[in-house]
Amino acid sequence: MEELVALCKRRGFIFQSNEIYGGLQGLYDYGPLGVELKNNIKQSWWASMVYDRDDIEGLDASILTHPDVLKYSGHEDTFSDPMVDCKSCGERFRADQIPDYCKEEDLTEPRQFNLMFKTNVGPVDDGTSFAYLRPETAQQIFTNFKNIVDSTSRTLPFGIAQIGKAFRNEITPRNFIFRVREFEQMELEFFVQPGSDEEWHKKWVESRLNWWERQGVPKEKLELLHVTGEDLAHYSKATVDIMYKFPHGLEELEGIANRTDFDLGSHSKNQEDLGITAKTAKNNSSNSKLAIQDLKTNKWVVPYVIEPSAGVERGFLAILNESYKIEELENGKERVVLSLKPHLSPIKAAIIPLKKNNAELVDLAYKLKNKLQNLRLGRVVVENTGNIGKSYRKHDEIGTPLCITIDFDTIEKDQVTVRNRDTMNQKTINISEASDFFKDYLIS
Amino acid sequence: MEELVALCKRRGFIFQSNEIYGGLQGLYDYGPLGVELKNNIKQSWWASMVYDRDDIEGLDASILTHPDVLKYSGHEDTFSDPMVDCKSCGERFRADQIPDYCKEEDLTEPRQFNLMFKTNVGPVDDGTSFAYLRPETAQQIFTNFKNIVDSTSRTLPFGIAQIGKAFRNEITPRNFIFRVREFEQMELEFFVQPGSDEEWHKKWVESRLNWWERQGVPKEKLELLHVTGEDLAHYSKATVDIMYKFPHGLEELEGIANRTDFDLGSHSKNQEDLGITAKTAKNNSSNSKLAIQDLKTNKWVVPYVIEPSAGVERGFLAILNESYKIEELENGKERVVLSLKPHLSPIKAAIIPLKKNNAELVDLAYKLKNKLQNLRLGRVVVENTGNIGKSYRKHDEIGTPLCITIDFDTIEKDQVTVRNRDTMNQKTINISEASDFFKDYLIS
Repeated sequence: MEELVALCKRRGFIFQSNEIYGGLQGLYDYGPLGVELKNNIKQSWWASMVYDRDDIEGLDASILTHPDVLKYSGHEDTFSDPMVDCKSCGERFRADQIPDYCKEEDLTEPRQFNLMFKTNVGPVDDGTSFAYLRPETAQQIFTNFKNIVDSTSRTLPFGIAQIGKAFRNEITPRNFIFRVREFEQMELEFFVQPGSDEEWHKKWVESRLNWWERQGVPKEKLELLHVTGEDLAHYSKATVDIMYKFPHGLEELEGIANRTDFDLGSHSKNQEDLGITAKTAKNNSSNSKLAIQDLKTNKWVVPYVIEPSAGVERGFLAILNESYKIEELENGKERVVLSLKPHLSPIKAAIIPLKKNNAELVDLAYKLKNKLQNLRLGRVVVENTGNIGKSYRKHDEIGTPLCITIDFDTIEKDQVTVRNRDTMNQKTINISEASDFFKDYLIS
Repeated sequence: MEELVALCKRRGFIFQSNEIYGGLQGLYDYGPLGVELKNNIKQSWWASMVYDRDDIEGLDASILTHPDVLKYSGHEDTFSDPMVDCKSCGERFRADQIPDYCKEEDLTEPRQFNLMFKTNVGPVDDGTSFAYLRPETAQQIFTNFKNIVDSTSRTLPFGIAQIGKAFRNEITPRNFIFRVREFEQMELEFFVQPGSDEEWHKKWVESRLNWWERQGVPKEKLELLHVTGEDLAHYSKATVDIMYKFPHGLEELEGIANRTDFDLGSHSKNQEDLGITAKTAKNNSSNSKLAIQDLKTNKWVVPYVIEPSAGVERGFLAILNESYKIEELENGKERVVLSLKPHLSPIKAAIIPLKKNNAELVDLAYKLKNKLQNLRLGRVVVENTGNIGKSYRKHDEIGTPLCITIDFDTIEKDQVTVRNRDTMNQKTINISEASDFFKDYLIS
């Protein structure tokens, strides 16, 4: 883990947030390379959900959330961790994360601490007008169910996907970007006919394993945990956690829950007419019937929901951990390489002029950069240090799949040298073939 | 404006946030089409800054912000609007936005209301440990200045670009998505040698006008306002606002400020050694020298900053307003068309099988959809309603540039009909040419 954290800071993937003022625990900033990797993970998820399938719509809802949403979802009552005070050191801890230096006799009885952040909204600050920062993106998908059905004419089964920030006031944030107070979720709520939910649950577990494999986290590194007993959330009929061996231990990478009709049922008006199977609190505040009409029978149905919910930061960490390698070379030296899948690499290709002070070479490098950049497949840079070996080492370490060298053969014979990050093989191609070579390599 | 708002709701661009619980003022959710248009605007900005240029790095910092950041930036003292109470109706208003029904004699004297949202962080809730929701993305760019210089070895001039949410507790949010409490900014901080700042300021105004033009907001619809006197922010040497005639009036679309060395100077340690020209408060909290070493003279320089700062939602509204047209057709009927630039369209192409119940036609449609989707140029859908005319009308209204019809000529002669949204011209091409036709249309 220390090596990863050091690489992240040195190369500009991840910085401690607010560092110049001593930092704020559990908050991180994504630097020039981190923002690209993060965006690439998100885009890969979005494409697999909204673009490649034909049964999913997208959404981007607000972070500030009406208290009623999180009252009826159950978060106000149950979204909490047990907390204890240490009477000796004066600090507070999550009951299952007490450091060794605290003696048991100094600890208070655990009490529940709600993890939601609150903020006052509007010019009157008397506690009557506040919003929560959403603790998950899911709830605003449920509250927009009718808006989306009405505007898209969707019928079951179909899903709504959302990527966005969520906030949890963790008592003890830790393990780098694994447990943080501000993070991003990639959540799908997939609405199905009651009765077909168990089959869809299985399909989604399989589909998500396949997606992680395509991001470079192979199935043999993942374990499925069938959540049972009191670990199962109040809304869930069954939850499968995809577990990954992070540097600090085996932990949840993604959860796939069968949430039944609990959520739509909880947020709906006229609950008593809808045959809701989940146990929901009485809702007199909602103005909307969150059900869908069956086109054959004309009956109103409250769909069951399958929810694959993944954290962007946890994915980032798993992907980084899987791709980080120290390789021994034939000459006895070592190289650090991030063998990221090309569609995730922060930089797709580095164009390297052989000499930094040769205007003709540098000019050709920028021309090729612009050509490859215009293919709209991600960031391409000119690496104008005049040191090919050093450029290769840098781009191995940050996961750039291709380095393309511009030398005097480019001027004389229109040839460039393409070097592959993983094999380190070099190949001479004509500069006119560079676009197709690059495109084929990245899209395949 | 009413027409735009109605279209946005009906077609799934924008919904009132938390609507089923009566809504929260000044918050909006972006539906299936809105999220695509918004992402496309952001990607277009990011590409123009980070990808197409060679002098800009990206960043994605946390929303929760250490109070010291917003103390030294000046926000704690000055980021406020004048507010008055109406003693008759009991409501509060921005002093310049008092409704007609309030009588002047009932109003209190204006007092300053700070627009920043606050929230408690950590398990102790005694007011000592809190963060702000950032009121702008800019500040975290300044606080990360050293991290980015160290990890990228940049020299002047260079910029740092960031897109992300910002929050302002507006006293009276209004005009649809124009003045809201949660919004996204696209901000660039471009660091230059002191002395070259005025020239760079001019360049950036020109560059941003060109960018808006490429998004479909032409220069003749924009006005430059040179901000003067007390409208000029305390950190600014000169600010040029790009003004656009929104449906509700002429207002700021983007601001381009010469922030001098105020920000880096304010957040730096050892201020007295750095020759800062701006008037900054004494900073004993920062642990970082926010300056850069001149490679020739070895002297430390606090760069000046040019900041083009644009709002995503305001851009969204301007782009929608410019593209929304009601056209009279030759047959006397009307059509609604969103003539969005193709790179911004939420859906890039709709594939329409002539008959919805013909398995062969529908199958060919999905095959073509997958082929075009795999080019990674945005969302492609199959529109399987069996009603070509209705599909054309829908896709005109949501701005889809191309409709491709699959009919019996596709089965017999491999031909498809491509219809252009703007000209309504139809053209028959071979299905094997569809990919190139689509690509050329979208990338040109």
